[in-house]
Amino acid sequence: MSEAYVHGYDPRENERLQNQAGTLADLLHSDTFYPPGSVVLEAGCGVGAQTVTLARRSSNARFTSIDLSADSIAEAKRKVGSAGLTNVQFRQADIFALPFAAESFDHVFVCFVLEHLSRPVEALVILRGLLRPGGTMTVIEGDHGSTYFHPDSSAAHHAIQCLVKLQQLAGGNALIGRQLYPLMVEAGLEAVHVSPLMVYVDSSRPDLVDGFTRKTFTAMIEGVRKSAMEAGITDPEAFDAGIRDLRRTAEPDGVFCYTFFKGVGEKSRRA
Amino acid sequence: MSEAYVHGYDPRENERLQNQAGTLADLLHSDTFYPPGSVVLEAGCGVGAQTVTLARRSSNARFTSIDLSADSIAEAKRKVGSAGLTNVQFRQADIFALPFAAESFDHVFVCFVLEHLSRPVEALVILRGLLRPGGTMTVIEGDHGSTYFHPDSSAAHHAIQCLVKLQQLAGGNALIGRQLYPLMVEAGLEAVHVSPLMVYVDSSRPDLVDGFTRKTFTAMIEGVRKSAMEAGITDPEAFDAGIRDLRRTAEPDGVFCYTFFKGVGEKSRRA
Repeated sequence: MSEAYVHGYDPRENERLQNQAGTLADLLHSDTFYPPGSVVLEAGCGVGAQTVTLARRSSNARFTSIDLSADSIAEAKRKVGSAGLTNVQFRQADIFALPFAAESFDHVFVCFVLEHLSRPVEALVILRGLLRPGGTMTVIEGDHGSTYFHPDSSAAHHAIQCLVKLQQLAGGNALIGRQLYPLMVEAGLEAVHVSPLMVYVDSSRPDLVDGFTRKTFTAMIEGVRKSAMEAGITDPEAFDAGIRDLRRTAEPDGVFCYTFFKGVGEKSRRA
Repeated sequence: MSEAYVHGYDPRENERLQNQAGTLADLLHSDTFYPPGSVVLEAGCGVGAQTVTLARRSSNARFTSIDLSADSIAEAKRKVGSAGLTNVQFRQADIFALPFAAESFDHVFVCFVLEHLSRPVEALVILRGLLRPGGTMTVIEGDHGSTYFHPDSSAAHHAIQCLVKLQQLAGGNALIGRQLYPLMVEAGLEAVHVSPLMVYVDSSRPDLVDGFTRKTFTAMIEGVRKSAMEAGITDPEAFDAGIRDLRRTAEPDGVFCYTFFKGVGEKSRRA
């Protein structure tokens, strides 16, 4: 959850990220397409959860996917290879010290990365520098403060708040989704357009009940149990009551809501 | 805000409801259309904020719009007349004691009504009884717990919470939107489908900044200032700080999010 934290090390965490990517791919990427021949930087690819979808949807674009973690890149490379895709090259690199020439990409794609950074605007400014004039930047982030559900439960909100606090303690921001518009504008991008991508789940949508409410969101909160205890921001009883109430929202009369935000901006065409 | 409370008495409140209806008509009603010749009950039309849009969009359907308040009906009638619409008849009636024969409507439309009722399922069951087999019921409600914004502010959440508490004290539920699916299922409707209708506002959408963030949502919260003081659930300093922070979200770097829910269900075709 810090800038040094890397999603996907743990096999169970890796499975969670895969479930998330599978369930959400259509929602998040349905309007992401890069023209044949374009050169795209994916900054912070992690274990490649989005990379396969991106590269498959724009099979004649060329992707360079970077991540801070060699282990994550190895996993992403394996995944892209299994999918039979040959239009992605990987490179281990720090987003704040990128080994690329200015204006060397047509497009930049950043998904679930800013939430971990203490200097998100600085990162966006660096990435903007790598775009050619007129190139676009796409940024996708969640916002844990967008979470609400039925039955409502203060215990469940407490458990979610544990993740929010841990991310904050690590210098990140789990409520960053709603801020995409001002952040991208502050970073000097033009024609910024942000779309909310809301996940609404009730029992008429069993795939989402299982794939999103249970295996993505609740699993993600469960995943911070140990860290939250160690940080002294909860106790087993309070935390487990929250998890129980989150699971309750996946029952037949339950409802669960969460919103991702997707922003697209352009680098000025003026010199 | 109680079952006896009626929106739209006050001229300023009436203006707010008009702004809301104008800004939101497309969002809320874009997929509401009733076939020529069909007979539709609008239960709880208030001052007619939705009636004009409904009747105009389905100009060959016949509407019966009811409300508990004679004053509201007089205003709704005036509005429908000014719009040159002749396909609406009005009647003063209580939703729990309706003067209609069973199965006498093809469709029922209910918007911003359940939030004020202490027995929402009972109301839906009564309305279902008025539908012919195979007829549809459309229900629209907001959910004040779906509100979040940038900059975040506990004072603003406190002010919103004042309205939520007042509505609760009056027997209503300002968080009812998320519950539409289980409520409609419990009321015996079939093939229930709920869609979230999210209003996302940043400064690239100036019409919504003014029409929704300022003149609909913030104005609505401001409208309960006096009642909240009288109920002893806030003080002038805390409440006004909240209003100030809600207005702050309408500045150029601000963002505001709110979600309405629209449910459509069917009455069983079986005898």
